[in-house]
Amino acid sequence: MSDKSANGNGNGNGKRPLPQVSAVDPVANLPAIEGFPASEKVYVEADGLAVPVRRIHLTGGEPAFDVYDTSGPQGVDPHHGLPKLRKPWIEARLRDGDSGNRSQMHYARRGIITPEMKFVAIREQCAPEFVRDEIARGRAILPANINHPESEPMIIGRNFLVKINANIGNSAVSSTIGEEVDKLRWSVKWGADTVMDLSTGENIHETREWIIRNSPVPIGTVPIYQCLEKVKGDPEKLTIDLFLETLIEQAEQGVDYFTIHAGVRLAYIPYTANRVTGIVSRGGSIMAKWCLSHHKENFLYTDFERICEVMKKYDVAFSLGDGLRPGSTADANDRAQLAELDTLGELTDIAWKHDVQTMIEGPGHVAMHKIKENVDLQMRICKEAPFYTLGPLVTDIAPGYDHITSAIGAAMIGWFGTAMLCYVTPKEHLGLPDRDDVKDGVIAYKIAAHAADLAKGHPGAQKRDDALSKARFEFRWQDQFHLSLDPDTAKDFHDETLPAPAAKGAHFCSMCGPKFCSMKITGEVREMVAKQELEAGLAAKAQEFKDSGGKLYAGSDDHDH
Amino acid sequence: MSDKSANGNGNGNGKRPLPQVSAVDPVANLPAIEGFPASEKVYVEADGLAVPVRRIHLTGGEPAFDVYDTSGPQGVDPHHGLPKLRKPWIEARLRDGDSGNRSQMHYARRGIITPEMKFVAIREQCAPEFVRDEIARGRAILPANINHPESEPMIIGRNFLVKINANIGNSAVSSTIGEEVDKLRWSVKWGADTVMDLSTGENIHETREWIIRNSPVPIGTVPIYQCLEKVKGDPEKLTIDLFLETLIEQAEQGVDYFTIHAGVRLAYIPYTANRVTGIVSRGGSIMAKWCLSHHKENFLYTDFERICEVMKKYDVAFSLGDGLRPGSTADANDRAQLAELDTLGELTDIAWKHDVQTMIEGPGHVAMHKIKENVDLQMRICKEAPFYTLGPLVTDIAPGYDHITSAIGAAMIGWFGTAMLCYVTPKEHLGLPDRDDVKDGVIAYKIAAHAADLAKGHPGAQKRDDALSKARFEFRWQDQFHLSLDPDTAKDFHDETLPAPAAKGAHFCSMCGPKFCSMKITGEVREMVAKQELEAGLAAKAQEFKDSGGKLYAGSDDHDH
Repeated sequence: MSDKSANGNGNGNGKRPLPQVSAVDPVANLPAIEGFPASEKVYVEADGLAVPVRRIHLTGGEPAFDVYDTSGPQGVDPHHGLPKLRKPWIEARLRDGDSGNRSQMHYARRGIITPEMKFVAIREQCAPEFVRDEIARGRAILPANINHPESEPMIIGRNFLVKINANIGNSAVSSTIGEEVDKLRWSVKWGADTVMDLSTGENIHETREWIIRNSPVPIGTVPIYQCLEKVKGDPEKLTIDLFLETLIEQAEQGVDYFTIHAGVRLAYIPYTANRVTGIVSRGGSIMAKWCLSHHKENFLYTDFERICEVMKKYDVAFSLGDGLRPGSTADANDRAQLAELDTLGELTDIAWKHDVQTMIEGPGHVAMHKIKENVDLQMRICKEAPFYTLGPLVTDIAPGYDHITSAIGAAMIGWFGTAMLCYVTPKEHLGLPDRDDVKDGVIAYKIAAHAADLAKGHPGAQKRDDALSKARFEFRWQDQFHLSLDPDTAKDFHDETLPAPAAKGAHFCSMCGPKFCSMKITGEVREMVAKQELEAGLAAKAQEFKDSGGKLYAGSDDHDH
Repeated sequence: MSDKSANGNGNGNGKRPLPQVSAVDPVANLPAIEGFPASEKVYVEADGLAVPVRRIHLTGGEPAFDVYDTSGPQGVDPHHGLPKLRKPWIEARLRDGDSGNRSQMHYARRGIITPEMKFVAIREQCAPEFVRDEIARGRAILPANINHPESEPMIIGRNFLVKINANIGNSAVSSTIGEEVDKLRWSVKWGADTVMDLSTGENIHETREWIIRNSPVPIGTVPIYQCLEKVKGDPEKLTIDLFLETLIEQAEQGVDYFTIHAGVRLAYIPYTANRVTGIVSRGGSIMAKWCLSHHKENFLYTDFERICEVMKKYDVAFSLGDGLRPGSTADANDRAQLAELDTLGELTDIAWKHDVQTMIEGPGHVAMHKIKENVDLQMRICKEAPFYTLGPLVTDIAPGYDHITSAIGAAMIGWFGTAMLCYVTPKEHLGLPDRDDVKDGVIAYKIAAHAADLAKGHPGAQKRDDALSKARFEFRWQDQFHLSLDPDTAKDFHDETLPAPAAKGAHFCSMCGPKFCSMKITGEVREMVAKQELEAGLAAKAQEFKDSGGKLYAGSDDHDH
């Protein structure tokens, strides 16, 4: 499985080592990523496939608990990249009748259940045919560039577990390739389902190469950022040819989905002029500037079908960008945003005509009472193509805490039907996220996604809550930590108040102390109720015995013959 | 105003210094509480009253921005306690015809608008008559024990700003009086509207005395905790007489609201036996144990009217406790919880018969799809008495992050009509909150409460979002920090990426760097649109001029005579 030979479909999978941009090895001193305590990675074998789960071992006779696992193969040298899990599947398809359209949607619509779909079905605990059907009708996407064979298949759609995306990427101001590879591995450890590389500065191509080769999850990008680098930051010089060339470059490397701001139409731009925060999407503002400078329609819109031709050849999925998304609660659900959404619906139809997998990006900043309208409109206008939202932040007044302001909106929009939630870190609006920020963002979004799964009644979601709550109630402290999203933090917090190892076995907690504990008392209540029920039962039996005339075997008269 | 003489209504307001429990001065080395940058405390004069606001000074010609302020008088020696703002009002009422019932509800129902109600009206920017009417009908409470004259009046009700409560208090395991006074001052700095002292260990009485004398916000307690100390931790020994004696002791000190678990009826206890997490409320489990041990009805229920007699004499408000609240999402909205809610509705009627102000406590742990039912039922059963909920946490799987899991539920339940949100800190379920945890909890809940105000369309709530968003869009970095809930953290995060002082005036941010910035481009878009509109306008004018025959003053033919 850990074959490093070329797969023939791109320039990123060959035998040559990953590119180095200087004499310094960018991944020489990456921090080790520790595993979770009491957990082991296990591959569930089914349907000829080995699908990873993280198995949490519990105490007190409780069965082990398996959780969805995004962390990928461990202990791999980043210079070599991850094993190419999907390589034989991709090669077999190309050999057995390649139509030039390699999208999972194309196969799904021809009734073919790919190994990727089977893999997803095991991960999501549903039928492969259901996966195929959801992809065929466009209600789910399985991002899987043929040049990213290292990825473990996953699915984005509202009838599956809610997914989360983490953004990484260097900028003109900061960070190196090594830091970004570290953030990638750190993100997937904590549960990121996809990662977007939003690099805008130097070494965009090389950074991306290192990221993709080491990523077990789909990678998304915003190709216009690299285009802008190629024209030295002048949006007016952008052309469709440069754009297509860049798409091909990135598709060859293995990018699994592209954010493309094809809905920013010339006519909509004036709608933003009186907003509190104008246009806040980088891609959106680049295209707006191009449109206004040339006084022409957005070339991403006019040449959308040429873009589709590239997408289907590599199976890159569209993430149709919301370039006119609101940048403040004041601008939510306004004319600019909704006009663009109409165009995204139109473009979804065109993408689907080409069997190109498509999801739709959404806001941003939206107060709670306006969130549901976003989902309802998106589902209708984009015919249930998966919705992929950034938060939304439910208030603008807490920079430094926007992982929280946005987790509130994310949980709600996930419940209402959004398929993937793009994380926001505490540094949003203020600076570039570091390792701690990435973790805080991912954990906040795992909470939001899981809360949404619970509220949607996803089968299985409630089980983890129940396992953890049971451990909590039974004072199995270690099990409580191990079942949590972040066992180390939970344990550290417990240690701060009760550091003695014996406290981890104590039948009390620091909130009430040893003399009095509500959970302890409930245990006693339970015993008393059981005893009273038993006594009541015995008393009833005694009365019954008495009423029946005192015979030891009441029924014997009737049946003993 | 800073009079320290006795007011004659309790043992806590006399000339004697605050009690010391040992030779060590408990508040000798409290950390100083810093103010907010660019802010000053201003007293708005109106209706003969001086109501505090925090005035945030902005740059760029923007007007100063006033925010609701809970921090109380600053720079007061904790040995002396805060000035007794309400003392003359209370004394005047007692002089001018004391009926023995001193509750704000009693005055409101007799058509009297108290100074407290006027103060609240200025704070909430509404009419005093509206405040009086909401209190009279029981839809809002104004917690204001006559023996806590230091408090600055505030109101809890769904037609006002959503409020938040912070819990402090020592336990058998940890913390001292000084730490608790520090947490009080720290909580109100960050915006706690009320504070509950949940002390359970040694020195309960003394700790409470220090807290009340230094609190500008209403203080709540759970008196059964102190009762349990008095019977050395044995719930079976509790009696109504001990309870009433403890209520009087605490009411004399000036506690503004009592959590009383009078809805834990004997018949409901067996409903909890098959729960995943039984009874998790401390007060609930104490009363459950008492009921079962004696096989008798809860004395708090049977003697509820005797309790009302104490409450109305001091104007202590009820916070009717939900002793059977769910401790896990599995147990949410179950028979035990809803049976207790029915009883709380019944008790609300009795409390209101005595003109005792009453709010109702709510869960706890509730997945998102079950939250609204809680509010709808509570409003109907308790006739719109204010709802006061703990979170709720929307999932159980993230110990260490329960300020986030619960802020999601809190924001939603606040939007649906909950009047006050009890904070949850990151330490919930794991340990006792320290200073940082208290701050994290308060900030998460300020976010939730403000998000709820926005979603409810509270007049004025949107203004702060807009002011901050405008500052953000105009690159007024300092203004953005100063308008945020936590300016220091926002600034520190910005410093991490761009530490140079000049960056605070830079028209770009670290996400995009100086060469390219979406907000910068939008500014250009705005200019271009304005220019195009101008040009279009000029062209139209030119055409008009041409069409009109080229006369310079089109109307002159008609009017120049």
